[in-house]
Amino acid sequence: MRDPEFENLTSGWWRLPTGPTNMISDVAGVRVGHCTKNDGSARTGVTAVLPHSGNMFSQKLEAGVAVLNGFGKSVGLVQVKELGQIETPILLSNTFAMPTCSTVLTKRAIAQNPEIGRKLPTVNPLAFECNDGLLNDIQALHVSEDMAQAALDSAAAEFELGSVGAGTGMKSFGFAGGVGSASRLVQIGDDLQYTIGALVLSNFGKQSEFRFCGKRLLETNGENETPDRGSIIILLATNAPLCSRQLKRVASRSSAALGRMGSFLGHGSGDIALAFSTANQAQTNVGKATVQFERLNESLLDQMFLGAVEAVEEAVLTAMWHGKSREGYDGIAFPELRNSMLNDKE
Amino acid sequence: MRDPEFENLTSGWWRLPTGPTNMISDVAGVRVGHCTKNDGSARTGVTAVLPHSGNMFSQKLEAGVAVLNGFGKSVGLVQVKELGQIETPILLSNTFAMPTCSTVLTKRAIAQNPEIGRKLPTVNPLAFECNDGLLNDIQALHVSEDMAQAALDSAAAEFELGSVGAGTGMKSFGFAGGVGSASRLVQIGDDLQYTIGALVLSNFGKQSEFRFCGKRLLETNGENETPDRGSIIILLATNAPLCSRQLKRVASRSSAALGRMGSFLGHGSGDIALAFSTANQAQTNVGKATVQFERLNESLLDQMFLGAVEAVEEAVLTAMWHGKSREGYDGIAFPELRNSMLNDKE
Amino acid sequence: MRDPEFENLTSGWWRLPTGPTNMISDVAGVRVGHCTKNDGSARTGVTAVLPHSGNMFSQKLEAGVAVLNGFGKSVGLVQVKELGQIETPILLSNTFAMPTCSTVLTKRAIAQNPEIGRKLPTVNPLAFECNDGLLNDIQALHVSEDMAQAALDSAAAEFELGSVGAGTGMKSFGFAGGVGSASRLVQIGDDLQYTIGALVLSNFGKQSEFRFCGKRLLETNGENETPDRGSIIILLATNAPLCSRQLKRVASRSSAALGRMGSFLGHGSGDIALAFSTANQAQTNVGKATVQFERLNESLLDQMFLGAVEAVEEAVLTAMWHGKSREGYDGIAFPELRNSMLNDKE
Amino acid sequence: MRDPEFENLTSGWWRLPTGPTNMISDVAGVRVGHCTKNDGSARTGVTAVLPHSGNMFSQKLEAGVAVLNGFGKSVGLVQVKELGQIETPILLSNTFAMPTCSTVLTKRAIAQNPEIGRKLPTVNPLAFECNDGLLNDIQALHVSEDMAQAALDSAAAEFELGSVGAGTGMKSFGFAGGVGSASRLVQIGDDLQYTIGALVLSNFGKQSEFRFCGKRLLETNGENETPDRGSIIILLATNAPLCSRQLKRVASRSSAALGRMGSFLGHGSGDIALAFSTANQAQTNVGKATVQFERLNESLLDQMFLGAVEAVEEAVLTAMWHGKSREGYDGIAFPELRNSMLNDKE
Repeated sequence: MRDPEFENLTSGWWRLPTGPTNMISDVAGVRVGHCTKNDGSARTGVTAVLPHSGNMFSQKLEAGVAVLNGFGKSVGLVQVKELGQIETPILLSNTFAMPTCSTVLTKRAIAQNPEIGRKLPTVNPLAFECNDGLLNDIQALHVSEDMAQAALDSAAAEFELGSVGAGTGMKSFGFAGGVGSASRLVQIGDDLQYTIGALVLSNFGKQSEFRFCGKRLLETNGENETPDRGSIIILLATNAPLCSRQLKRVASRSSAALGRMGSFLGHGSGDIALAFSTANQAQTNVGKATVQFERLNESLLDQMFLGAVEAVEEAVLTAMWHGKSREGYDGIAFPELRNSMLNDKE
Repeated sequence: MRDPEFENLTSGWWRLPTGPTNMISDVAGVRVGHCTKNDGSARTGVTAVLPHSGNMFSQKLEAGVAVLNGFGKSVGLVQVKELGQIETPILLSNTFAMPTCSTVLTKRAIAQNPEIGRKLPTVNPLAFECNDGLLNDIQALHVSEDMAQAALDSAAAEFELGSVGAGTGMKSFGFAGGVGSASRLVQIGDDLQYTIGALVLSNFGKQSEFRFCGKRLLETNGENETPDRGSIIILLATNAPLCSRQLKRVASRSSAALGRMGSFLGHGSGDIALAFSTANQAQTNVGKATVQFERLNESLLDQMFLGAVEAVEEAVLTAMWHGKSREGYDGIAFPELRNSMLNDKE
Repeated sequence: MRDPEFENLTSGWWRLPTGPTNMISDVAGVRVGHCTKNDGSARTGVTAVLPHSGNMFSQKLEAGVAVLNGFGKSVGLVQVKELGQIETPILLSNTFAMPTCSTVLTKRAIAQNPEIGRKLPTVNPLAFECNDGLLNDIQALHVSEDMAQAALDSAAAEFELGSVGAGTGMKSFGFAGGVGSASRLVQIGDDLQYTIGALVLSNFGKQSEFRFCGKRLLETNGENETPDRGSIIILLATNAPLCSRQLKRVASRSSAALGRMGSFLGHGSGDIALAFSTANQAQTNVGKATVQFERLNESLLDQMFLGAVEAVEEAVLTAMWHGKSREGYDGIAFPELRNSMLNDKE
Repeated sequence: MRDPEFENLTSGWWRLPTGPTNMISDVAGVRVGHCTKNDGSARTGVTAVLPHSGNMFSQKLEAGVAVLNGFGKSVGLVQVKELGQIETPILLSNTFAMPTCSTVLTKRAIAQNPEIGRKLPTVNPLAFECNDGLLNDIQALHVSEDMAQAALDSAAAEFELGSVGAGTGMKSFGFAGGVGSASRLVQIGDDLQYTIGALVLSNFGKQSEFRFCGKRLLETNGENETPDRGSIIILLATNAPLCSRQLKRVASRSSAALGRMGSFLGHGSGDIALAFSTANQAQTNVGKATVQFERLNESLLDQMFLGAVEAVEEAVLTAMWHGKSREGYDGIAFPELRNSMLNDKE
């Protein structure tokens, strides 16, 4: 989501060109939807990422996981690690909404594939979480199945960033904002160009450690700051033909992006990255004994890695840039990075 | 649960002495409860394992995980791997009941610790599953929060085995039966004796491969058998002072027990083992900067490993021995091992 | 290596047909060579496994690793796990010979690819070990570069088993014997047939726990036995088109084979399995940006898993069956399984 | 190693206080020695890190490993991961010197413990590598056992940084320099203070991506740069009482430090971190069945993590700051960061 002021402030920091919209949906077929609940004691929501528009269970996608810090309650990772594939859309929400999100994904898969759990194996729902409990009364379990379904139903190539959907009540490095996205174009030799896009649910980081494009914003030493109890979920999509092992390598580069911004991967921060590839879709046809799988030459991965690092860093910055200050159920509110930086310039 | 006929048939196969009841509850403090739903299209239930009787969230236990084959949808493992601790009881049920079980564990933890998700971090519910869809109409989502709560409430040192609780609709190596348990006494030097106990939710194995104490029961080659789509969940409890790394080593020995019975850890079988220690409970007091942790000498682990292997193998055999043949919602029923073996002898 | 007496004793225990010679070399292209040093205080040697006859560095093979118990000093696994490939032959020897084996593999790769470490990356030598110190004076560092080279040079489809090469001074479940091999044919649907072969360097197991085809040989309880300080290295080769993730799954099934024979994966036993595929060789051409990779349908892996388990179990039994009793440098000798079992029958 | 000019340039970038000398040897007992070979075609050497002055085999230390990118040939990691301990000093050198370093460590352990490989288990030598082949004729195998022994023998609390020992022929982000070190003091509550120190063998990074304290030095886009084929080895020492699982968590934070400097963990860069604790030494006495182990409260790890990130980042910068430009065997030389930055200021 292009914003000239933001692009001006970050100009010169990046190496790789962005995709047309600088969003994860620059990877063809990827769509994102939100459902936001911002009333009463609720500052929460659901964000859905649909890797393709078809039946994910019958057309699985290759995927890899990197658990950077496993203090988290996300659902579905054990099977992704074993089989290297995802078979549902991905839902993001608050920590206590994981069961609701799982149930909706399971029901949706059954509706599309009525033999799941009967003639077909069961399905592995994929849901990730951060804790929005500073603004949202998380114990009230505000997220309903209808909300998760609405997020799935509203998925589109265009979508909002900042304090919206699962990111409604989240903060990053002390500033409001939760959902961010960016993309990069990766040139391989003269002939091949791929896109890699990131979507983050960002709820992590200490304000006193934050660097905006390498520069610290604050000169306090963070002594009075509360400990970092947040988390960050990082989703990476690419149309490059990568296998699950390669995608795991791509996902693990996210830690470098977090480091660039000043994170030290705090103890209480569940930092988890998942990367998937939209290539090789036709190859999951279960009717064939062997499939022909296209795979990028391992020695050409460096630009994919750089693209992943840049997309993840910029995605977090966009989550903060588009964040809206809102009073939480308990009277707390977070400042807005955009206001803070534009005022600084005046 | 002692049964003279069973003990007679397995006599001579084991090396280590059993605990007093030959159940996981021989580890002091461990209790197990069931809730069974066996009507209409339901052949399912919930089994609860309570590692101690106190507040698990404030008195966490050291734990380790071994994912033998990750084709499974269990919940909570990411955090156990990172932090080496469990902080809720453990619920076992069918695949699609994982959300319900998670929710009940979260609500229970909040009831005991009202600041969870507020001043305290969120809680990591721990729930494991097998697919009972051959007998149970799994799509009907028969497991309710009340059932999970009832399993927790009924926990006791004495409990049923076989086709009960989470094991109601399960089969092992083609025979009826799901919940099994056994225990072993482990002597360390002259002075120290520990107990290790196993509880399994067993739903795995091809009948044509089954060995009862090393001996094949069937002489068919399994050609017409359906593929093994089951799973096995293995819980190991011990009062030995083991750290999470050592407990992971103990848990990983379960694969040898499965091998003894003829399993080859089939592709579709989610085989997951978790081991926890009831020692060092007082050491989780979050008020102290450092804790004194007791740890068994690494070079003395062999008897613990052997105890784990024997307890897991016998636990699976007890699940089968106590299995009850029941017609499922779709007209299928599994034979009973006990009948089959006692008739063989006649 | 076929032996009618052995086949008679094990008849009925296996499900899958063996390859023509029942050796790892039934996988086309795989060759094995030995160099044995059995004089003075030396009861040791080197065994070389050549996955194909070409230049392994320029034609790497897909591979996966399962560390069943990491109490071992094998060399090269970190990179295999990351990149999913092997790029040298594999050398097996005693623990303190790992540096010598590594050096020989590096020199050999440089001789074939003079730009290694210059215009090309460095090479990852792959060497595995067990401790033959009960018979061999391991501190004397008996293994020379010439011996490692001789093992490589003598590689052939036919090779000896038992107390030979790296297995010269080893014992398994208390009996003499170290190198074993077996193979299985795996039928996938009606049209596809693959071979999976195992070669083990076996130096593990407690005699009192040993089961021969499910039956305990000894009725002692092992009280006076020395602790199991051995190890087992398991190499699996297949011509099935498996990726590194799938090969890791195949390798991990070895633990079930060890369990069948009575192992509990003792603390001091470095139990490591590596599986490689000879398929997709042409695809490692570094000149292409993307390669077409053939991959077996994940849901058809069960027979590969069963084949791996059977081949590993039989390979260990052949190592023992062909073992020769030899007095070690310190006066110790191990009994021969063949004598023991044939005498039992008389 | 304090340098006022360097401290002036980096002032304000760090949060935590340094130890007295800002070296890994600020952790009491840790000593470092070098042996440098800088003649003929040799630009190489060995660096030894001695975690304590006693017998490492009989007094093992708790340790944890994080393989950030496993394109590397380091030796000994499999066992450290399994057992959570190190039992020899650590040697750093070039890639092809790993066998020599392993042999020297094994011989040294045997000299101190004559029953190794006999009544005692074998020993796990720990050696790490980067490829110095751009300056050093690595195929000539310049590193001898004497050199490795000399590095061990010269270990002291004071030691040189930059182009010395194993770092003689190495470069970091395009500048000369290989060995770096730094330390941080970590305050836990009011009463406890620990030290964490880093030593790096740094041979990684693209010049066009380099950030010095967040600021890019070069404005080129790196198009004509050669791919990053280097690696970085990161050793972290602390006197805080951490267990192997916690030390693994500490080690894994190194990736954030690399990210801060502009690394994206390139494909060809073997990036490996090992952290050890000098606490709990008396607890490895093998004569006891159980030991009392002191462990830091998990929720207090954040300052250790921050200390690790800062120490690793500064250690790399010191490796570069002290680097010396030397012509390699093939005519290549790397610029010196110190000259480059001080000239920039003029």
